[in-house]
Amino acid sequence: MSKNNAQFSAGQMRRLVGRVREGKQWEEEDTIVVEEPLEIKVGFGKAGRRQRKAVAVTMRTPGNDLALALGFLFSEGLISSYREVLQIRHVGNQLEEGAQDNVLLVDLHPDVQFDVQRLQRHFYASSSCGVCGKASIDLVQLHTCYLLREAYPQLKHTILYQLTKQLEKEQALFSQTGGIHAAALFDAAGTLLFMQEDVGRHNAVDKLLGMALQQNLVPLRDKVLLLSGRIGFELVQKAVMAGIPIVAAVGAPSSLAIELAATHGQTVIGFLKNNRFNIYTGEERVIFMD
Amino acid sequence: MSKNNAQFSAGQMRRLVGRVREGKQWEEEDTIVVEEPLEIKVGFGKAGRRQRKAVAVTMRTPGNDLALALGFLFSEGLISSYREVLQIRHVGNQLEEGAQDNVLLVDLHPDVQFDVQRLQRHFYASSSCGVCGKASIDLVQLHTCYLLREAYPQLKHTILYQLTKQLEKEQALFSQTGGIHAAALFDAAGTLLFMQEDVGRHNAVDKLLGMALQQNLVPLRDKVLLLSGRIGFELVQKAVMAGIPIVAAVGAPSSLAIELAATHGQTVIGFLKNNRFNIYTGEERVIFMD
Repeated sequence: MSKNNAQFSAGQMRRLVGRVREGKQWEEEDTIVVEEPLEIKVGFGKAGRRQRKAVAVTMRTPGNDLALALGFLFSEGLISSYREVLQIRHVGNQLEEGAQDNVLLVDLHPDVQFDVQRLQRHFYASSSCGVCGKASIDLVQLHTCYLLREAYPQLKHTILYQLTKQLEKEQALFSQTGGIHAAALFDAAGTLLFMQEDVGRHNAVDKLLGMALQQNLVPLRDKVLLLSGRIGFELVQKAVMAGIPIVAAVGAPSSLAIELAATHGQTVIGFLKNNRFNIYTGEERVIFMD
Repeated sequence: MSKNNAQFSAGQMRRLVGRVREGKQWEEEDTIVVEEPLEIKVGFGKAGRRQRKAVAVTMRTPGNDLALALGFLFSEGLISSYREVLQIRHVGNQLEEGAQDNVLLVDLHPDVQFDVQRLQRHFYASSSCGVCGKASIDLVQLHTCYLLREAYPQLKHTILYQLTKQLEKEQALFSQTGGIHAAALFDAAGTLLFMQEDVGRHNAVDKLLGMALQQNLVPLRDKVLLLSGRIGFELVQKAVMAGIPIVAAVGAPSSLAIELAATHGQTVIGFLKNNRFNIYTGEERVIFMD
C-alpha cells in the first residue's frame, strides 16, 4: 500500500504533512520512515522430511531483509554461522499486494540440527528457575560461543569522539525522516564498516550482524558497535552473541545491559557525544593518548 | 542483584561511572535506569478447572507492574475491562533473590472466556492472509471496541505547545537517568492525568492504560497520549484499543503508524517541540485560536 505513494523507496516514503510553527500553518511534502511487518520462516530437516516453521514477526523498515533474518536467527542462537544457510528467499502470498515482500524463508542445510523449541525456550526458560535479571543473564551465557574477555582491541578516546560524528554524517546521507534508529560497526581505528537504519533498534543491529555473517567477519573480536539511541539488555545480548567487545551509544545503558556486559567482560560506553562519554564497564579498552 | 547497590529504588539505581570530558577523566556516582524481566501469567477457567498460562515476558523498569500487566492484556485484546480481573499478584520463586518481584499472575473471573490461542494468533494470524501492513491494520480493526471517529475533542494549538513542556518538567522530577521513555495522558484542556516512564516505550504506554483501566477511565475518548520518543505501529495500536483520539510525540511517526491512525480517524502529531509540530492525520481535531 505504501506503493501508492509517489517517490516510494524501500525505507522511506513521501507524504503531505501539515506543519505548524509558532501559530503559522501550511502543508508540504515530508519524508516518512517506512514500517512494515516481516515474517521470518525457517525451513529445516533432511530431504523428504523438510518442515517450515514461522519463528518471528518483526516490525521493520524494508531493506536488507535477508541480512535482518540472518542476524536475527544468529543473535537469538538459532543458527551459529552463515554456512548453515542454504538459501534465503521471499515466499509471500502473491495475491496480496506488498505481502510477497514481507515473508522470508530461510532454508537451512539438511545437516543442521534446528531446535524448533529453542525460540520458545529462549522466552520462557526463565519461568522454571525464577524470572530475574540473573536468569536472563545466565540464558545468554548458555548460548554464547565467544569469549569477549580474550578480545582486546584498545580504542583511543579521541577515536571514540569521532564515531558519533561519522554516524551523524552517514545518517544525514541516508535518512531525512528523523524517525529511525541507526547502528554501525567500526574497527578499532575508527573506520566505518557498516551502517544500518531501522524503525526498530534491534532490527538495525540484526541487519549489521547479518551483513557481517555474510562476509564471514563473525566473531567481530576487534570491532565496535555504535548505537544512535539507548543500550538495552537485548542489544548487549546481540553484541555478546557476535563476539563484539565494545558497545558505545549516544544514549544511556540500562542496569541489566551493564550487568550482562560486565559478566562477559564487554566494554559499555554511553552518552557519547560532543567529545564526552561515560564508561560503565570494561574501561581497560579505552586508552588516553593523543 | 540490583539490591546490592546503595540507594536502590524501584526504577533507578546508583552506580560508579567513569566520566570522560575533553580528555579529562574521573569517577563518580550516576543514576542508571533499572531494567528487569517481567513475566505475565494469566489464571483462567471455571472453579476446579483453573489453568495458568504464561503470555509474555517483557523487559521493563520495575514499578507499577500491576498496571503494566493490566494494560498489556488490554491493549493486546486479551481482556476488555478491569472487571474481568479478580486479582493480580506476584507469584515468583521465593528462593531466587529479586525473582519474586518479576512474575505476575493475573487471575481472571471464572466467567471470562480467555482464548489462550489469541496471543499466538495475534502474532501469526497474518501468515495465512499474507503479511503486510494491510493485514496488520486489519488485525487491529478486528480487536477494537471503540470508534475513534465519534470521539471529538478539539485541542488548541497553544495547548499542544504546552504538553511537551509539562512532560519535560515531570520527567525532570522523576528521572535523572536519561535512559528512559515517557508516556503521559492529558485531557483536552492540557491537564496532565498520568505520566509513566520505562526502558520500553510500549511498557510506559501499557502502564498508563492499566492505570486508566483501574480508574475506570477507558475508553479515553477525550484524552491525548503524549510520547517522549517516536510513534511506531504498536503504540498507535495500543492507543486505538483504548479509544484515544489524539496521539502526539516529540519524535516522528512511522508510515504504518500513520496508516493505522488514518484508518481509525485518529489524530497523529509528531515533532512536537519548541512551539512547533507536524500533523499527519486527523487535523480537524486541532484548532487555531488564542
